[in-house]
Amino acid sequence: MRSKPLLLVNIGQLVTLRGSNVGPRRGSSLSKLAIITDAAILCLGGMVVSVGTTKDALRDPWLKKNRKRVTEIDCRSRVVLPGFVDSHTHPVFTCPRLVDFEKRIAGANYEEIAEAGGGIRASIEGVRKAGKAALTELVAVALEDMARHGTTTVEAKSGYGLSLESELKSLEVIRAAARRWPGTVVPTFLGAHAVPPEYRGRSQEYVDSVCAAMIPAVAKAKLARFVDVFCDRGAFSAEEAAQIFKAAEEHGLAIRAHMGQLSETRLEPFLRFKPASLDHMDYVNDADLPALAASDTVATFVPGANYFLGLSRYPEARRFIEAGVAVALATDYNPGSSPTQSMPMAMSLACTHMKMTPAEAIAAATINGAWALRLADRKGSVEPGKDADFAVFDVEDYREIPYWFGVNRCELTVMNGIPAKV
Amino acid sequence: MRSKPLLLVNIGQLVTLRGSNVGPRRGSSLSKLAIITDAAILCLGGMVVSVGTTKDALRDPWLKKNRKRVTEIDCRSRVVLPGFVDSHTHPVFTCPRLVDFEKRIAGANYEEIAEAGGGIRASIEGVRKAGKAALTELVAVALEDMARHGTTTVEAKSGYGLSLESELKSLEVIRAAARRWPGTVVPTFLGAHAVPPEYRGRSQEYVDSVCAAMIPAVAKAKLARFVDVFCDRGAFSAEEAAQIFKAAEEHGLAIRAHMGQLSETRLEPFLRFKPASLDHMDYVNDADLPALAASDTVATFVPGANYFLGLSRYPEARRFIEAGVAVALATDYNPGSSPTQSMPMAMSLACTHMKMTPAEAIAAATINGAWALRLADRKGSVEPGKDADFAVFDVEDYREIPYWFGVNRCELTVMNGIPAKV
Repeated sequence: MRSKPLLLVNIGQLVTLRGSNVGPRRGSSLSKLAIITDAAILCLGGMVVSVGTTKDALRDPWLKKNRKRVTEIDCRSRVVLPGFVDSHTHPVFTCPRLVDFEKRIAGANYEEIAEAGGGIRASIEGVRKAGKAALTELVAVALEDMARHGTTTVEAKSGYGLSLESELKSLEVIRAAARRWPGTVVPTFLGAHAVPPEYRGRSQEYVDSVCAAMIPAVAKAKLARFVDVFCDRGAFSAEEAAQIFKAAEEHGLAIRAHMGQLSETRLEPFLRFKPASLDHMDYVNDADLPALAASDTVATFVPGANYFLGLSRYPEARRFIEAGVAVALATDYNPGSSPTQSMPMAMSLACTHMKMTPAEAIAAATINGAWALRLADRKGSVEPGKDADFAVFDVEDYREIPYWFGVNRCELTVMNGIPAKV
Repeated sequence: MRSKPLLLVNIGQLVTLRGSNVGPRRGSSLSKLAIITDAAILCLGGMVVSVGTTKDALRDPWLKKNRKRVTEIDCRSRVVLPGFVDSHTHPVFTCPRLVDFEKRIAGANYEEIAEAGGGIRASIEGVRKAGKAALTELVAVALEDMARHGTTTVEAKSGYGLSLESELKSLEVIRAAARRWPGTVVPTFLGAHAVPPEYRGRSQEYVDSVCAAMIPAVAKAKLARFVDVFCDRGAFSAEEAAQIFKAAEEHGLAIRAHMGQLSETRLEPFLRFKPASLDHMDYVNDADLPALAASDTVATFVPGANYFLGLSRYPEARRFIEAGVAVALATDYNPGSSPTQSMPMAMSLACTHMKMTPAEAIAAATINGAWALRLADRKGSVEPGKDADFAVFDVEDYREIPYWFGVNRCELTVMNGIPAKV
């Protein structure tokens, strides 16, 4: 897919989020959206070349001369913002987990569902049996659904294969789907998502095989940028996580982890691995916050999981923000605990249930998501030199994006300079 | 708008909800969906004439002869169900209440926001000033948005005018918007939504004017089928509600009420007025449940308001269902406490936060919504003789409708026999 010269004009509110690129947004800088009214954006070769007012853009000499070659989009006074960066998704699965859904309604908890053969393990069989083409189709549809809700960059994890073969297959599927999609996909190897049934009771042996066989194979085939571990009660221990992080480091892969979803794990020992992000963060010890704030590690909240699991407890965003921790928001798109492709839904939850302001939710869903993927040099804000990734919303005020809930007000996305109608 | 002969074929799961029409669904009958697989529906003159399998439909002699006159829709094995009946909405307003939204995030509660000039009163100024054409356009857009999410029948309340003139204007706007929409609109007069600012401290005088001036004028102009009252702490008292119900009764208008959203009001005294529905029902005394269960009054839950207000408490649906009370679900679409047009979102909330099963949520959103509007003879199930109101969802299993959250899987609605692509 090649991008043509593109001009967006008559943008009512352009949320640029421009500014310091020295590190992720923290504290009060989280809510500095740097909005331009009556704005225009000019893009060439899939990149932003200039940002300003519509009046100034239309006066630009280059543009005057080349007007006919340029695709012009009239934004009719609507809101434009950087495309969302969804930095935590699990899109490689075959079926919705409707049985788990009904069991939970009848009163079963996360661990009881897993014990009964549901949970992560329920998705393994489907992925192991599925052909690559069928899986690729499913991931491609999910990416399109995400784009329809304003997302232009997606982190996509393996983790429902849990064997060398089916984990490599999952990552190949992510690569194949990414090639069909104009947006940007960041692949993550999550072999340590759960202990697969054939290793039941032999967790350490499985971790050894993740480290000795899977990580080297993934690195060699350049199939992932990150290694992720589900570190929690009932999943992998802090020691097992550290072993996996070390193997990732040795193979030149960056690190991220699921932390504190069900129980507290102390974070300090992990910070020396410089994880790009620690995700979920429902249970985090106060004593870990200063070190987290002093690091470039982002705390990524995925309130869709709290919502779908019917929990009354949500990550305490204000505690993190006030401690100076950089926070991001993601969907956690997956069939067991967060079947949603919508970043605006994650933002609505952050505003209504975590007391994040609309401005903070937008920064967390864009620029800080980009930091959580180590892509802030290219993604997450609308600035000259960055990729032309935008979402146009049919609203007059940016605060309406998390305000209207359960409905989709996104009407257009631009991904690497390529416009796609919703 | 006139409907042409219409045939839906290859329906993977047709949720008919056919069966006894003696009263609303209660207890275990709430989850009897009466699903037909590989189904077909034939509609003539905006009504269902036959329901069966695709094979049988294609053998029908009348159909064989008239095939060319019939619009055929291939449902590609997707799920079809009765169009949702959204039995509680407040669509006549001019602006989203973004200031209230941000104040609530900063910690203000419902009453503090009202005290600061927000809440219901904040919408009054907009409605009083607005022209009829502009308001009609806004209501028409809201109805279209609702239809896009599978809703084909909408109850629409006035209640942001709160003067004789602007309440009549609001109801005229509802009538005008309804005429432009192929679905069905049921208008409700909600003059007793709040005490307007000019009557501050003179609640009884306002109630007198609602009873003596507004209700007679609304009835005379046939602008509403129902009279509603917001009966709660900070709104109208039980005595004031009873006075308004009496006036409604005298003028031949049916009754519904907002009850128990913020505090408990005893229900028994109201049941003699035979309200079609009592809505919200967050706080209800156990001692009232037997009488409620013995009546035909529906308890309508609007969990969107609990969600948007960030409450951890939701209506205790299971307590009502187990007591034999007929329950319905609605969006409560309004700018202050429930800015959503999506019935699937209300159903998702019911499943994840009120422990209703997907089957119960569907019955509550269709046939029991129809009972709550006294329209069960025409709406809420797919049966010969009823109106041709359907929603086609791009899913394979009806349980996916509340499962995927924050996204819209509805791809087509049929309203009174007229198909509308989403």
